[in-house]
Amino acid sequence: MAGPQPPPCSLPAAAPSPADYKQPFGAEEWRCLGHQLVDWLADYQAGIGRWPVRSQVSPGYLRPLLPAAAPEQPQGLDAILSDVTQHILPGITHWQSPSFFAWFGANTSPPSQLAEMLCSALNVIGFSWISSPACTELEAICMDWLGQLLGLPPCFLSAGGGTGVIQSTASEATLVALLAAKARALAGRPPEDASKVVAYCSDQAHSSVKKACMVAGVQHLRVLPTHAAQQHTLQAAVLEAAVEADRAAGLLPCYVVATVGTTSSCAVDPIPAVGAAAQRLGLWLHVDAAWAGAYALLPELRHHFEGLEAADSLDTNPHKGLLTGFDCSCMWIKDASWARAALSLTPEYLRHAANDLDYKDLQVPLGRKMRSLKLWFVMRMYGAEGLRAYLRNRLECQRAFEALLAGEPRLRVAPGTAPAFGLVCFQLSRPDEAASEALLEAVNATGKVFLVHTKLDGVHTWRLALGSTNTQRCHVEAAWAVIQQALDNREQEQQQQQL
Amino acid sequence: MAGPQPPPCSLPAAAPSPADYKQPFGAEEWRCLGHQLVDWLADYQAGIGRWPVRSQVSPGYLRPLLPAAAPEQPQGLDAILSDVTQHILPGITHWQSPSFFAWFGANTSPPSQLAEMLCSALNVIGFSWISSPACTELEAICMDWLGQLLGLPPCFLSAGGGTGVIQSTASEATLVALLAAKARALAGRPPEDASKVVAYCSDQAHSSVKKACMVAGVQHLRVLPTHAAQQHTLQAAVLEAAVEADRAAGLLPCYVVATVGTTSSCAVDPIPAVGAAAQRLGLWLHVDAAWAGAYALLPELRHHFEGLEAADSLDTNPHKGLLTGFDCSCMWIKDASWARAALSLTPEYLRHAANDLDYKDLQVPLGRKMRSLKLWFVMRMYGAEGLRAYLRNRLECQRAFEALLAGEPRLRVAPGTAPAFGLVCFQLSRPDEAASEALLEAVNATGKVFLVHTKLDGVHTWRLALGSTNTQRCHVEAAWAVIQQALDNREQEQQQQQL
Repeated sequence: MAGPQPPPCSLPAAAPSPADYKQPFGAEEWRCLGHQLVDWLADYQAGIGRWPVRSQVSPGYLRPLLPAAAPEQPQGLDAILSDVTQHILPGITHWQSPSFFAWFGANTSPPSQLAEMLCSALNVIGFSWISSPACTELEAICMDWLGQLLGLPPCFLSAGGGTGVIQSTASEATLVALLAAKARALAGRPPEDASKVVAYCSDQAHSSVKKACMVAGVQHLRVLPTHAAQQHTLQAAVLEAAVEADRAAGLLPCYVVATVGTTSSCAVDPIPAVGAAAQRLGLWLHVDAAWAGAYALLPELRHHFEGLEAADSLDTNPHKGLLTGFDCSCMWIKDASWARAALSLTPEYLRHAANDLDYKDLQVPLGRKMRSLKLWFVMRMYGAEGLRAYLRNRLECQRAFEALLAGEPRLRVAPGTAPAFGLVCFQLSRPDEAASEALLEAVNATGKVFLVHTKLDGVHTWRLALGSTNTQRCHVEAAWAVIQQALDNREQEQQQQQL
Repeated sequence: MAGPQPPPCSLPAAAPSPADYKQPFGAEEWRCLGHQLVDWLADYQAGIGRWPVRSQVSPGYLRPLLPAAAPEQPQGLDAILSDVTQHILPGITHWQSPSFFAWFGANTSPPSQLAEMLCSALNVIGFSWISSPACTELEAICMDWLGQLLGLPPCFLSAGGGTGVIQSTASEATLVALLAAKARALAGRPPEDASKVVAYCSDQAHSSVKKACMVAGVQHLRVLPTHAAQQHTLQAAVLEAAVEADRAAGLLPCYVVATVGTTSSCAVDPIPAVGAAAQRLGLWLHVDAAWAGAYALLPELRHHFEGLEAADSLDTNPHKGLLTGFDCSCMWIKDASWARAALSLTPEYLRHAANDLDYKDLQVPLGRKMRSLKLWFVMRMYGAEGLRAYLRNRLECQRAFEALLAGEPRLRVAPGTAPAFGLVCFQLSRPDEAASEALLEAVNATGKVFLVHTKLDGVHTWRLALGSTNTQRCHVEAAWAVIQQALDNREQEQQQQQL
């Protein structure tokens, strides 16, 4: 297919003189180098399942392997790729490995990588509409497309007066929502009331809520307790009691974060009840569905996302669950005017027509790239059907692992959790923190698989998070074999010690 | 060159069963698609100088051109690229055009694009050391390499106890420095003193200082006046007087931002004097050299960066001036413990060995990508000599434009500015706001060139910012021809009206 032909316009045929400086990398050099790298990357992708998943290096490994200073003279791509293979890849924890089950996955895909190539070639900075109109407009359109696929209430889509914006991370969405909430609560009040602002979340909410408060200078964050009996979910009654106590103390409650799919155990806070409480109490409700949000694509899981119309903002990360490379965190805001009030300012050198469409006013940084391209490529090259098939495969893998777990008396699903959204939390049937830590380290040290732990009700708990692009049932079975081997080895050691 | 071979380890040969879900894009599909896109991008690059620089579309142009919803079935790359050519590229303001002279440039280069391809294929999230050791360690090494090339004082380099961290944008560096300054100032004080914190900058500082205060809830920002007689630079005596007045009023001065290369006119605040004042007054000094910092690579311009050892932090954007794609903003901090105090928290699921090397604690978001790769590729593939040659070409282009300007009585260099770092600020010799606005619009409407304006001492002023990767002297001359043509056209119109 022929490349893009510029319109027959316009520019004078500027002819450099021979003495002029010439970039060492013209279009043809780039073509050559680009092809070379594509082949290298395709080979990497073909072998991705055979690298140790968790890097095996020790802290400080790299410095002795590289020169102490940048070279004076140019070096070739061959030399660099050779260093990447020898020195960098061993220090990579391979998030794209099909046997990566740590944290929540960050899965990319060829469609996303293609879009990122395009994005980095255009390299436009989309702080305002005129700085690249397509950057602003494609983002608004893609956010509507995705919002429709997820079945979001119309109030979050353009046609319903809502605003979609791609943030870099869910942390930033949580912060922007907090700033909007604060602006709304403080409107018409004296500035010193800022010290009275109170935010709320459950003890299972992501650490980014606390970080947002630290950044925004919000002095009061109530971390509300949850319990295994309610599957570690935020209880509306607990929220209401806390808000009323703070009001009675003269404080200014304004913000609550509810989570669909908590990091530790994929708990789903009851959005309808929390939303009703938030509306009654005049709190800004931000729904953090960073990981689980993608599953709203599946009609059979849509019920987890009921009640969203009571939220003021919500966020999900296609860069976590939806085949889109980091960074791409999709935030929808019902009434963006409060975020603008908190974040908008326009110096003379940024003053242009169409300033009301400027995304800079809905984020912390000024600069931004054309992240919508990757969302657009992913939605088009997979199609909605393809995305659903991909998510359903993850759920099948999850059920396969649950079935294996059910047949293993030495392990159990963590009490107060229900495997969901591709996450299974499990622990030793007879909790023993030291043993659990040692076993997990033994599992990860094999390089064959990588999981991380959390603590639930004080118990050391393993998390199997299914999120890699190429994970199939066979990889789950292989992971299971590694886990069982570690358990067997430990039993044998114990028996030998007893002899 | 052969691709990377995984070590002969380790993983069971997991064999998917035929019924298993299979990703539609395997390594060979990616190889094919990747080659196709590389050719398309090389063609785009070859033709980049022939597109209208500033997009010619009107707000809302894109929505009618795209479907109202994402497709259910997958679509091919050909169809998407055809849409990109027809519908997206016309809405792009071509930052990579050699005739792009707006704002400050955001220039990428083939070495950066290659690194970004690698980065997006690895797609590792580097919040903590173990999440990919090479991500953390290569960043620390590259920040030392670049710091050495820029001749930074040793206190900012690893060996001298300093810390380098790649932020997304200079806005975020300004915010992180403010949070660190605030943490230092508030240590040992009651939380309510947060409302007394005061920050300082000049009226020429970037808008991100004000935005940082809005985000961080800092209620007092003193925007100190500058004057043409001092080339719009921050005066230490003005700072001292403001701080003393605030102290007398019971406030808590803690943070000052000085700029090397202001956005409006590339003014250089006197770092030695401001630094001495900041140390005397106990303020955290952050030096914002977002644009101009790259020029510290040139020994002949190094004197602009004297006195940096008095700063607590500084920042420069290779994604602005140094051939590195957005985003890559390099921040050095003398004593990172205050930033950590402001931003660090580690929930159980992020608790691992080597937590003291975790970059998550020096930035607002949790997630981060391996941005060091592009800095590494650029430094290696250009070599320090190549980077200097590139910057010197910009200065030659700047001098060529100055020479043209000197021969044109209808225009003048803006009073109180000195062309520097590739930026020339100029205006009508007889200031006339309406005429200046209309002329600039006429220039930009040609599509042949794109500049933006600022205001200096209230006068509408044009900025020619040299920052595109492929700009040569011939492009500057072509831009000059467009500007002269606009002036001539206006004169003719005026003469016709007078007849």
